[in-house]
Amino acid sequence: MTEGHEGAVQSLIDELGRLPGVGPKGAQRIAFHVLAADPADVQRLASALVEVKERVRFCAVCGNVAEEDRCRVCRDPRRDTAVICVVEESKDVVAIERTREFRGTYHVLGGAISPIDGVGPDDLRVKELMSRLADGSVTELILATDPNLEGEATATYLARLVRPMGLKVTRLASGLPVGGDLEYADEVTLGRAFEGRRSLE
Amino acid sequence: MTEGHEGAVQSLIDELGRLPGVGPKGAQRIAFHVLAADPADVQRLASALVEVKERVRFCAVCGNVAEEDRCRVCRDPRRDTAVICVVEESKDVVAIERTREFRGTYHVLGGAISPIDGVGPDDLRVKELMSRLADGSVTELILATDPNLEGEATATYLARLVRPMGLKVTRLASGLPVGGDLEYADEVTLGRAFEGRRSLE
Repeated sequence: MTEGHEGAVQSLIDELGRLPGVGPKGAQRIAFHVLAADPADVQRLASALVEVKERVRFCAVCGNVAEEDRCRVCRDPRRDTAVICVVEESKDVVAIERTREFRGTYHVLGGAISPIDGVGPDDLRVKELMSRLADGSVTELILATDPNLEGEATATYLARLVRPMGLKVTRLASGLPVGGDLEYADEVTLGRAFEGRRSLE
Repeated sequence: MTEGHEGAVQSLIDELGRLPGVGPKGAQRIAFHVLAADPADVQRLASALVEVKERVRFCAVCGNVAEEDRCRVCRDPRRDTAVICVVEESKDVVAIERTREFRGTYHVLGGAISPIDGVGPDDLRVKELMSRLADGSVTELILATDPNLEGEATATYLARLVRPMGLKVTRLASGLPVGGDLEYADEVTLGRAFEGRRSLE
């Protein structure tokens, strides 16, 4: 067999090809980039991969990624623990933090309810959320799951579940993206934008 | 600073973002995939990265990637050393090997002549090619550099350089890609296809 690459190169291409969003051509391109790269750079990437597995765990309170027992948000004494923003994934936390608009805390579900993928409430961190709400210190629950089918279903499920607790439950506004073009908005988004229209004073 | 990801996650995203074809969103997606992946899989990827740098060198004869002193093609006694196919990169060797059409050997230049990028003949493995041709045992030189500006310039340069040696020098055919659509071919390619038309018997 003289086809394909030499052993070590082919192994690397195979491993890279398993990553999300990296196709066979992309994997080959990265492998040759690695071959030509400074050994120290490659070592740094390899160490970063191993370290992330060794050092990163999940926050005992909110389920966000953390390098200590609790994540950066939960460790911050200035954050308002009376407001919990429920998101699907840790990357949603990063996206919301970037807005600098939110000073409460988070709860990371670890996904959304999706019967087609076999994901039910028991597969998400719903029980953990309920125990955070148990002592009555939380006043508002913001349901910031994705504005798609699964995210909406999850938000509806959670809203019903916490209704008896009598706390304020909100959902992020749907509407036109800022900087977007009205004519390119899909009809559902445009419909929501009409529904949620604000009066200008 | 509560913006961005926790240290180890952000370091991994930064390192991944330096790879060719991986943007910031892709890097984040891969990092979260790694966080959720089996530690053994991640270890295997990290090892493959390090190993490729440790084990892979360049063939002493042709400049192709190799794990021993000579590459797989040059080690194979059935390959015809009287025919040398000149390519730009090791990945071109793999592409040609896949066709199973070629039984000669290769010479990997390590790029193409490109004044705009400051790459001249001295930056390529041209001297090494000339010394392979010195003993007169090579009968044909196939110039398989890319069919673009730099590749054509390199082929023209090499053809002139070896002309005094009186060996057969060929260039891969240009023309319509098999399975392609004539109407989508660019005019240069279509022109070449006319020029190189074959008579059907």
